[in-house]
Amino acid sequence: MKKKILIFILVFAVVLPLAAQTWIWYPGDYEIWLGNKMNNRRTDRGAYFPPFWKQDSHYVTVEFSKVINLPMPQRITIAAEGSYNVKLDGKMMFGMPSKIILPVGKHHLNIKVHNQSTPPALFIDGATVKTDSSWKVTYEDKEWIDESGKASDTSTTIYMNAGSWNFNDINSLPSAFALEQEPQKHLQTVSDVNGSYVYDFGKETFGYPVLKGLKGNGTIYLYYGESKEESEDMDHCETLDKIEVKDGKVIDLVNNRTTDLSETYELDNSKAFRYIMVRTEGDCSYDDISMQYEYMPETVKGSFRCDDDEINRIWDVGTYTLQLTTREFFIDGIKRDRWVWSGDAAQSYLMNYYLFNDNDEVKRTTWLLGGKPPVTSHINTIMDYTFYWFIGIYNYYMYSGDASFVKQIYPRMQALMQYVLGRTDADGMVEGLAGDWVFVDWADGYLDKHGQLSFEQILYCRSLETMALCAKIADDEASQSKYNELADNLRAKLMPDFWNEQKQALVHNRINGIQSNTVTRYANMFGILFNYLDNEHQQIVKNSVLLNDSILHISTPYMRFYELESLCALGQQTDVLNDIKDYWGGMLNEGATAFWEKYNPGEKGKAHLAMYGRPYGKSLCHAWGASPIYLLGRYYLGVHPTKPGYEEYEVKPVLGGLKWMEGSVPTPYGKIYVKMDKSNVTVKSDGGKGFLVINRKGKQEKIDIPAGKEMAVKL
Amino acid sequence: MKKKILIFILVFAVVLPLAAQTWIWYPGDYEIWLGNKMNNRRTDRGAYFPPFWKQDSHYVTVEFSKVINLPMPQRITIAAEGSYNVKLDGKMMFGMPSKIILPVGKHHLNIKVHNQSTPPALFIDGATVKTDSSWKVTYEDKEWIDESGKASDTSTTIYMNAGSWNFNDINSLPSAFALEQEPQKHLQTVSDVNGSYVYDFGKETFGYPVLKGLKGNGTIYLYYGESKEESEDMDHCETLDKIEVKDGKVIDLVNNRTTDLSETYELDNSKAFRYIMVRTEGDCSYDDISMQYEYMPETVKGSFRCDDDEINRIWDVGTYTLQLTTREFFIDGIKRDRWVWSGDAAQSYLMNYYLFNDNDEVKRTTWLLGGKPPVTSHINTIMDYTFYWFIGIYNYYMYSGDASFVKQIYPRMQALMQYVLGRTDADGMVEGLAGDWVFVDWADGYLDKHGQLSFEQILYCRSLETMALCAKIADDEASQSKYNELADNLRAKLMPDFWNEQKQALVHNRINGIQSNTVTRYANMFGILFNYLDNEHQQIVKNSVLLNDSILHISTPYMRFYELESLCALGQQTDVLNDIKDYWGGMLNEGATAFWEKYNPGEKGKAHLAMYGRPYGKSLCHAWGASPIYLLGRYYLGVHPTKPGYEEYEVKPVLGGLKWMEGSVPTPYGKIYVKMDKSNVTVKSDGGKGFLVINRKGKQEKIDIPAGKEMAVKL
Repeated sequence: MKKKILIFILVFAVVLPLAAQTWIWYPGDYEIWLGNKMNNRRTDRGAYFPPFWKQDSHYVTVEFSKVINLPMPQRITIAAEGSYNVKLDGKMMFGMPSKIILPVGKHHLNIKVHNQSTPPALFIDGATVKTDSSWKVTYEDKEWIDESGKASDTSTTIYMNAGSWNFNDINSLPSAFALEQEPQKHLQTVSDVNGSYVYDFGKETFGYPVLKGLKGNGTIYLYYGESKEESEDMDHCETLDKIEVKDGKVIDLVNNRTTDLSETYELDNSKAFRYIMVRTEGDCSYDDISMQYEYMPETVKGSFRCDDDEINRIWDVGTYTLQLTTREFFIDGIKRDRWVWSGDAAQSYLMNYYLFNDNDEVKRTTWLLGGKPPVTSHINTIMDYTFYWFIGIYNYYMYSGDASFVKQIYPRMQALMQYVLGRTDADGMVEGLAGDWVFVDWADGYLDKHGQLSFEQILYCRSLETMALCAKIADDEASQSKYNELADNLRAKLMPDFWNEQKQALVHNRINGIQSNTVTRYANMFGILFNYLDNEHQQIVKNSVLLNDSILHISTPYMRFYELESLCALGQQTDVLNDIKDYWGGMLNEGATAFWEKYNPGEKGKAHLAMYGRPYGKSLCHAWGASPIYLLGRYYLGVHPTKPGYEEYEVKPVLGGLKWMEGSVPTPYGKIYVKMDKSNVTVKSDGGKGFLVINRKGKQEKIDIPAGKEMAVKL
Repeated sequence: MKKKILIFILVFAVVLPLAAQTWIWYPGDYEIWLGNKMNNRRTDRGAYFPPFWKQDSHYVTVEFSKVINLPMPQRITIAAEGSYNVKLDGKMMFGMPSKIILPVGKHHLNIKVHNQSTPPALFIDGATVKTDSSWKVTYEDKEWIDESGKASDTSTTIYMNAGSWNFNDINSLPSAFALEQEPQKHLQTVSDVNGSYVYDFGKETFGYPVLKGLKGNGTIYLYYGESKEESEDMDHCETLDKIEVKDGKVIDLVNNRTTDLSETYELDNSKAFRYIMVRTEGDCSYDDISMQYEYMPETVKGSFRCDDDEINRIWDVGTYTLQLTTREFFIDGIKRDRWVWSGDAAQSYLMNYYLFNDNDEVKRTTWLLGGKPPVTSHINTIMDYTFYWFIGIYNYYMYSGDASFVKQIYPRMQALMQYVLGRTDADGMVEGLAGDWVFVDWADGYLDKHGQLSFEQILYCRSLETMALCAKIADDEASQSKYNELADNLRAKLMPDFWNEQKQALVHNRINGIQSNTVTRYANMFGILFNYLDNEHQQIVKNSVLLNDSILHISTPYMRFYELESLCALGQQTDVLNDIKDYWGGMLNEGATAFWEKYNPGEKGKAHLAMYGRPYGKSLCHAWGASPIYLLGRYYLGVHPTKPGYEEYEVKPVLGGLKWMEGSVPTPYGKIYVKMDKSNVTVKSDGGKGFLVINRKGKQEKIDIPAGKEMAVKL
């Protein structure tokens, strides 16, 4: 009993932030606003290039409220981003007061903030009265007065708990948020290409180029390259800048912005590159170029080391890849679109749980992707990406145990699922309709996107399960039953409809109720991961599909993520380790300093740079390239939650061919440390009810892990 | 045949604006953004006081496009409010070009503009390529490219025609719109009230107070009054200002804004007042006060003059009342909330058709009130106001013939009607649910708001008819049938369900299927106006309700509007003229310089100022007070369209006790002039097929009105 109470206290302490004054807003609104900044920052060869999906906005007038009960009067400080009023027990105060004294007793404090340009935000600090997530917010209080002055019935007004992040100081305005910066220099080696100079910053990086000692009158071109080839190819590099120096002024010709010439000139837009070629035209010059590296400050909480140096380097480069692509949000790649994509983000979330364990980053990305009703298309217009969004929430809940977030986002989940339900066919399955992008993967072969794809049904089924889970958390029992029933019905159809006895596999799709002849890996992988295939069929598809060379190979790290995960789930860690070394090691051998959007081991040289029909179209720093981070933590160290928020968890370490390994996985309680060689396993955990699962003498054993104490087990 | 062609050409020329370059945006977006400025400008005794309903926002990224076909190259100028790109035939150009040359032939020109703070807007000017309402816009083109670079299927992308107003110059930025201003002085008579001075500006006015010669160190209070009593009552006046003069600075304590002290100081917020009391505290002084009168420049196109001077004064004060309340939008009253209310606006629209005939003002107000999906409440939270919104569109179409607007707003109409349909009861009727404000009127007696109100069903029925009409215009045949059926069903229920034989009237409401005992005027009035009562029953309720003194009297000009209109529709112009003289003449006798929100002829003195339980709560300049403008044009001059846009119209002049009258009514063709005395009628019309309807020798005659030629008829 005592233990249970202790666990409860620990969960409480870990999951709920300590009460501290912080800037608050309507949940999701700040995230959507910041996301608009992120998503509208892309340029393509000097042209502004925004997303092609609906971008939402914050509510421009928000009411913040709290019922307070004070034993003595309290002086509070009030600050807001926007025009605001302060109402105490229904009576408005004069002006926009920055200090007021709250009287003794129970009172209703209501503050309305209006801001068209940036999200209405509020900050209150007093001895005990402080803005935090316990404040209620609404965009529509429906509080009218009639002729007699009587207030209306506001019983149906929808109040949410306020959203917040880490703006805990009155002067840290949410709208002023900026990533961190620090100066970086290029290497000493500078190459001269027909009078232009190519600067090498040593590795893939991101930030604002800075020109020193600009002078004269002329034009300066900057050509960015993730590869040297790209930076030297003025006509095809994906990003570039052009500035004019003229009569003591500098004109940014991409943004039409003019500034006075001074000792250093920092470019307006951030760029991703390793190389920059600088070309001058006319009578102008500069002394040197450097950069302001821009990054999200993340603490690396996870770790992994082993006897294999290549694996260690893969882990390090994976970490750097995820660091670069973890910005205001989890983005896809830092060079090309820098947009927030749901399928990409779903993988970043999983890697994040083994590296930064930054819940706020997951929540921010989820809010942004979910957008606001009305739903007018799939997330990012992609059907699969809608489903990854649901699944991402499922996973977030498992890793964080954060039920409050689930409750907050649940209405948006309902709106999106309503959209999906409105587009199902007579079989209750999803098919791509006009305007839907059925993505699946960038495959090196024909992928039929027509009819019922088994892959999409499996993701859809998992999304329905997620809805049922979240409906339960949100106390919406009717919906919980409805979604469970829909999920059960769909799950029951998967085998009869898609399983092909001859092929011993789930086929790729059905058109008009007829199975196609094609088998692809996708549905079979996810069938294993979500346990929609029973053990027998999992073993069957391992051989008939996963380890079958005649099935279309996967060439993106994106789908390799799930492919290798499903092999790990089947205990194939030794094979997977070799795959990781071949594939990610292969990129390192090609000189990768971050992992790529796509990699075809057969290709050589420049061919690796091309994609989308463009010679440098491929992103050489893509979040989904970093999956070994996840695989090593989840299936080698073997750490994962079995109940939400690591309230219960399993450590099932597998060397998979390594001589030894050690590492840590962050959890809501702190971390779980695992060290293993062929004869010993050591585990130390900061909390949660854990089980070590090991094979000893050919037998699986399950051993309780004590919290806070190192445990060593002989194998 | 020739005549028909001529009419067609005229309609075309009148209804479509001439092709001229103008700033364009996503339809409704600018209006909603400007509306947020309008609705969030209210202050209440120095406190910011925003609306209590959801306020929407513009789409932050909008694509503008046009297919062009040029016989020779053309140089165009491009300007945008926001970051933008320019794509010609799918290829993006460098930077944000302000001049480009379009090549010969057929080309696709696509421009994306992003702006978080103000609506993305575009302006293009070339010899023939110019931004106007023929440009297409979307907030979501769904134009993705796949790995091969191939563009997606965008067949389901929704494109709208661009919105615009009158920003026809590259330098007239839509976001910089401001009303006109001109200086006004107070009268020479200044009264000293305990050392404070009360300034009289001679009549109700609106604008920014300007203090001249501020000096010293101290505080200055400004108390505004629509009445002298209000300005002198520091503790109860509805609006006030407070500024501090300190060490050469002026601090606006309402807005927390500090400026340098200079010769004149203009207050930040506009106010409505006739009187201002200025009080100084501490060692500060000022030399004089004046104001910057702020107004929407409107041309008074309608006119009315007659032998009765009181009626002429009523027409003039009505005109001034409507001028003051016609701002960026049609608002309710200029003092108190200055918000945009649908029921109030519906009346302003009708008056506008007889005075300014400013279509843009109607459209702007309609866009703002309609808001954006999702619909989360009735318009302004008021059930009846949702219905007035539909009816307002019906009337706008009749007076303007503007089918393009109907097509533009139709999707928003569908969204709102969907919301209404989702809230009907088992009888297919509307009842107030929790959170709904069932308003009807500010009545001087108990109005039951429970159950099925006959008044609400009648407005709802008319809204369904409007939906059917607009569905037809929008080529949505399925919906047209659906709405017609719903309207027919509901109309068929009105008499059996609400008619009471004993009372010879429609009763006020039904609860659980049981008629109440109460008869009010509302449903009976609208039953006449919408012809839901047949001729026999119209005559019955004229006596049993309209002219029956025992039925609860109406004391707002708001409902007097429809009451008098229904009497006019029954030919009671002589009675109504007396009513107008009593009621509006009564306000003039009380010293009104604009018409009021409410008037109880019995009351005297200060009682006229109170409302909502506050001594000066009543608005003394309220749009709905100006209804004689409409009644005189519509039922005395007798001019109104019988087909959309005055393609056909009727002139049915009625002296109603006057000796003579003359006036003009603006139409899409120009105007219709009518002059009448007891022996002659003269009509001159600028276009449309018109009929003069007169009584000669006890017989009604219908005479063709020639276009463009004065016609005189002897009675």
